Amino acid sequence: MSKETSTGAISIAPFRYALGIEYVGASYRGWQLQAYDNVPTIQAEVERALSVIANHPVQVVCAGRTDAGVNACHQVVHFDSWSERDERAWTLGTNSHLPDDISIKWASKVPGCFHARFSARERRYRYLIYTSPTRPAILAGGVTWTHRQLDTERMQTAARHLLGEHDFTSYRAVGCQARSPVREIRHLDVYRSGQLVVIDISANAFLHHMVRNIAGVLMAVGTGQKSPDWALAVLQAKDRRQGGVTAPPDGLYFVDVRYPDLFKLPKMPLGPYFLSTSD
Amino acid sequence: MSKETSTGAISIAPFRYALGIEYVGASYRGWQLQAYDNVPTIQAEVERALSVIANHPVQVVCAGRTDAGVNACHQVVHFDSWSERDERAWTLGTNSHLPDDISIKWASKVPGCFHARFSARERRYRYLIYTSPTRPAILAGGVTWTHRQLDTERMQTAARHLLGEHDFTSYRAVGCQARSPVREIRHLDVYRSGQLVVIDISANAFLHHMVRNIAGVLMAVGTGQKSPDWALAVLQAKDRRQGGVTAPPDGLYFVDVRYPDLFKLPKMPLGPYFLSTSD
Repeated sequence: MSKETSTGAISIAPFRYALGIEYVGASYRGWQLQAYDNVPTIQAEVERALSVIANHPVQVVCAGRTDAGVNACHQVVHFDSWSERDERAWTLGTNSHLPDDISIKWASKVPGCFHARFSARERRYRYLIYTSPTRPAILAGGVTWTHRQLDTERMQTAARHLLGEHDFTSYRAVGCQARSPVREIRHLDVYRSGQLVVIDISANAFLHHMVRNIAGVLMAVGTGQKSPDWALAVLQAKDRRQGGVTAPPDGLYFVDVRYPDLFKLPKMPLGPYFLSTSD
Repeated sequence: MSKETSTGAISIAPFRYALGIEYVGASYRGWQLQAYDNVPTIQAEVERALSVIANHPVQVVCAGRTDAGVNACHQVVHFDSWSERDERAWTLGTNSHLPDDISIKWASKVPGCFHARFSARERRYRYLIYTSPTRPAILAGGVTWTHRQLDTERMQTAARHLLGEHDFTSYRAVGCQARSPVREIRHLDVYRSGQLVVIDISANAFLHHMVRNIAGVLMAVGTGQKSPDWALAVLQAKDRRQGGVTAPPDGLYFVDVRYPDLFKLPKMPLGPYFLSTSD
């Protein structure tokens, strides 16, 4: 961020900060600021609140843009400011200007070379499926509901086909803007936690709709509609039309993003916090 | 429920049903129907939706009235109807006429002697406390937040003083309408589940605000403000003014109600469903 000084010179904001942010996506048209002021986005709310604390307009850059309805336990952003404030001001102070469904969890001063998007080495998502004959009331909009039984062992077998570096053309949205369809999935586990089935996935980065398209395929395998090998057949087709449905955004949580240790960012327990799993 | 027939005789609705209901209390002024139509209550929503399916006005009786903001995983009601419908109609059919934050989980035909309130032998609540330096966004309104550390062993020590049959005058609301202040606490556990501290309590029945007043005392013990023995001193004082603060309704969930086996009501997993605890 820069501004013109009274002498006409360009001044660069001297302080760069990183923030960890938790939010519920249900009431927003996604993370990213829209061209029209009246479209509710998480970025717009965060920038508005930070600008009050900074006492000047603030623009943030995020680790991963989330779609409409998608939640985050640990989105990370950076921003530049002319104002030097302590962690308490950037967390508790900013939170007092944010709606209840967005909360700044930590703040950290970072060097100017830190970039929330480009410095990130790994992202992690969890997809929560509530299995019950009847729809949920608690966490409605925060879980994906299915009235069908899901076989998590079948889902785990299918998931193994996706581990490693692959061309994920079949698993990305047709309109995805990324130059390369190649991504490396480093970890993909499916497990049950009470009435929830959790898909836990990490990769160097994700393509547009990639987690939801994987969740759609794994759910079709879990219900028995498709065999576990179908996940591989879809991958090898390199054709989005061969894939499954895009699972709803409701159950999707952005839970972690990893940066090189040199930035010394705070470590957070893996969310959502109501899951007691420790890994 | 009765109605006058064309011959002037009184006819009694021949079918009695019980329902299990899950709801989020945040948007309602509690369970109970209010005198004014424009006050949002869970009972009003449930009766309106059931009346559509029954095709006549329906009145329900609940196991335990919950206050404004209090949630339920397993509230139980009964109602009488002239209409014979299957479980699918009373659950899925009714749910299609209910807002997202209320869901009928099961329905069962019961004998005319069943009464949701008077047949109940035991009620169970769970109180969820989210411990974090910063407020929650996910489940905001569905957990009680404290930025202080809680020592669950101290809380458990305090809780033991309350087990058994006692005069709970110090733990009931001043305006509580119950004739007797004596209740029997059968089970009272405090445990940690990730960033949540859970107070799990069952009793034959509860007085008004009893769980929230117990939670207020246990939280003051957990933070170290009070000693575990204070829970006993409060009990013995038989004076509400000696008690602690009434903890907020946000974290309170009505999770179970037990009836004699002869009614053969469905057993539900103990909620909220996002807690993976099995007991």
